Amino acid sequence: MNETHDPKIKSWVASANAPDCDFPLQNLPFGVFRRKNDEGGGIGVAIGDQVFDVGAWVRDQGKSSAEFKLLTEKRLNRFLAAGPQIWSAARMALFNLLREDSPQREQVARYLDATANVEMEMPIDIGDYTDFYASVFHATNVGSMFRPDNPLLPNYKWVPIGYHGRASSVVASGAAVKRPSGQRKPPTADMPTFGPCAQLDYELEVGAVIGPGNALGETVPLRDAEKHIFGLCLLNDWSARDIQAWEYQPLGPFLAKNFVTTISPWLVTLEALEPYRRSAYKRPEGDPQPLPYLSDENDQQRGAFDVSLDAYLSTRKMRDEKIAPISLSHGSLRDMYWTFGQMLAHHASNGCNLQPGDLIGSGTVSGQSKHSRGCLLELSWRGTEPISLPSGETRKFLEDGDEVIFRGYAEREGQARIGFGECRGIVVG
Amino acid sequence: MNETHDPKIKSWVASANAPDCDFPLQNLPFGVFRRKNDEGGGIGVAIGDQVFDVGAWVRDQGKSSAEFKLLTEKRLNRFLAAGPQIWSAARMALFNLLREDSPQREQVARYLDATANVEMEMPIDIGDYTDFYASVFHATNVGSMFRPDNPLLPNYKWVPIGYHGRASSVVASGAAVKRPSGQRKPPTADMPTFGPCAQLDYELEVGAVIGPGNALGETVPLRDAEKHIFGLCLLNDWSARDIQAWEYQPLGPFLAKNFVTTISPWLVTLEALEPYRRSAYKRPEGDPQPLPYLSDENDQQRGAFDVSLDAYLSTRKMRDEKIAPISLSHGSLRDMYWTFGQMLAHHASNGCNLQPGDLIGSGTVSGQSKHSRGCLLELSWRGTEPISLPSGETRKFLEDGDEVIFRGYAEREGQARIGFGECRGIVVG
Repeated sequence: MNETHDPKIKSWVASANAPDCDFPLQNLPFGVFRRKNDEGGGIGVAIGDQVFDVGAWVRDQGKSSAEFKLLTEKRLNRFLAAGPQIWSAARMALFNLLREDSPQREQVARYLDATANVEMEMPIDIGDYTDFYASVFHATNVGSMFRPDNPLLPNYKWVPIGYHGRASSVVASGAAVKRPSGQRKPPTADMPTFGPCAQLDYELEVGAVIGPGNALGETVPLRDAEKHIFGLCLLNDWSARDIQAWEYQPLGPFLAKNFVTTISPWLVTLEALEPYRRSAYKRPEGDPQPLPYLSDENDQQRGAFDVSLDAYLSTRKMRDEKIAPISLSHGSLRDMYWTFGQMLAHHASNGCNLQPGDLIGSGTVSGQSKHSRGCLLELSWRGTEPISLPSGETRKFLEDGDEVIFRGYAEREGQARIGFGECRGIVVG
Repeated sequence: MNETHDPKIKSWVASANAPDCDFPLQNLPFGVFRRKNDEGGGIGVAIGDQVFDVGAWVRDQGKSSAEFKLLTEKRLNRFLAAGPQIWSAARMALFNLLREDSPQREQVARYLDATANVEMEMPIDIGDYTDFYASVFHATNVGSMFRPDNPLLPNYKWVPIGYHGRASSVVASGAAVKRPSGQRKPPTADMPTFGPCAQLDYELEVGAVIGPGNALGETVPLRDAEKHIFGLCLLNDWSARDIQAWEYQPLGPFLAKNFVTTISPWLVTLEALEPYRRSAYKRPEGDPQPLPYLSDENDQQRGAFDVSLDAYLSTRKMRDEKIAPISLSHGSLRDMYWTFGQMLAHHASNGCNLQPGDLIGSGTVSGQSKHSRGCLLELSWRGTEPISLPSGETRKFLEDGDEVIFRGYAEREGQARIGFGECRGIVVG
């Protein structure tokens, strides 16, 4: 914790000081933007309702220090490779430029654009994307639908289960989500048919973006794992449940997941999230202790970020009738059985090389309560319990025109509240 | 078929005309090399025991035509993006430069280096790597070990089963293969332990490298699928069977596979393979016909390449005693249940975007006979039938110091014989 976490320090950007603002001075998330009028863009930092064009500022000021020069790139990958000291130095410098009493206020003000005037792009070129399955509540719920006799497999409490996802189809918030086609075979049918997915779902997840990483054949001990995580974003792991049920054995989900994955475009740094740490999920009595390579008292103490997550739904009819989006899922990243540190240490435990800009998904964030279930599969219990919407409609799964909006934030007594912005996608047929 | 397939035309590079040469004039595979004396490198083409430094030749000659200028890049990705017409034009031009009666012989000769003087690098930057499971013999064998009551799952004959692999750990032939550690739990044990893999295996596969690909949300109809495949290589999908058995449910193999994948460095073009096409694997009576999006008479007629594949083993003792590597697996790509065209069309059927340089693995190539089983898991029947080696040793799985060498070639009466070179890796502890 350092001065950048001090909630008493305000910004000269007035909108950043509003109580519900996602991007106060204490947040400073990194992203990549493009001006809607096509007048350039690059790496930026969100402050209030403004984007600070850091790349242009660094170029124009002729800054050549390590923490700045990497911010003139088109994507954040090289900055991510530089590691926590550089990230922290850049954050401190940006904090000082944007604080109320900054002597550079007038200079910097020329590099601000209203968020409304920019479009956000992918902040990183993703080398590899891995999705985990770290909520024991989600795993148990889903398992009990697909394998009623055997809901939670014997490896779950030992192995942070994960699988490789598709990097090419990860898109930034706002991109349309085209309903995929694929093979589906209801249990009662004799043979599968090919056609549009009838059980389209969202999955409320958090993504972690990798910093320096490790060379092939080397490992990352758990105590160092967080040094390799730059920050977090929201992640919607759109899923075609009917395709998934038919294809997933024995090698896991494939076309049911890789048609699109949406992330929120602002990467909230681990340093910004520092004040919102809580002890990790406490394993119930009787659960095994993790093996030594996944055990670290400090990781468990520090490990979980108390990030509140919401998945909102807005149907076409709701928009027509000016009904506000409704929260379907409300959970916390703190409920995960495995921390990101454990996931990362596990991922590299066989020598698999993680690289700057790799993306790691948490898996669907579900908690114990019904409202905390992080996908429609769980909420509608595989379609058997349709959800009633304020528009008079019901939903088992997503219909064309439905927009799914994720929001996330962290708050704590005596601290600023910081948010993730939004992760949006609208389903098109 | 065109003049480049004419077996009667010889090269002025004498070694290319030897009867067992992998790289005659009719092959012309593309790769990326680096001179061992550090004097540069780039995109090259193999001819006999020589590498033609195409990149340097294009630069020095000031060639600016589309088929040439992309060959001055560091990797083949942009050339792959250009599509079959450009590939074919480049092949024809190279053929004419290297044929016996080429007027440019003396000019070109200055750009040749002995293969022995170069090291091969990764020919492509791989965006995404997908591994299929296209041998019904392999799937049935493995299934009967892991699920004796249910060896071949009901989806197998409908769905070209595939899953995402790890792109970052794909390496070029020759890189050491470090034995991974991970969680293993024998069925008789109460709990898993973490330690070095005790059941390290190879998988004899063929890789297909993607050319232009498709935009997100678009599909690739089967009739067009082969236009998106630049060429093939050998692929060793190293596997940790003990880790795999414990981790793979429900989301598929992860750390059991992603510690390293080795490919042969020369990409043999589909055009070079044209003479060795045979009708695809004939589904036994009673098997379902593929769904329409996977059905194309032309694909089935043209679809399979009759590429012979061998996996050789050389143990440390065998090398010490000057015993030649022994062929453990000998199969043919023709035995696959699904063609690469079907795999690609399936992969894109949900709108998943394939990109230039993506890698698609066939899955282990196993046939009906015992010798054609493409991995030790099958050959030693999960370790229950150890394999006797000419050195007096036995093997259930790979031991430290073991080198696995893949070779592949295509031959046909009245045609040249073309080969893939080697895909090598030595296991280190």
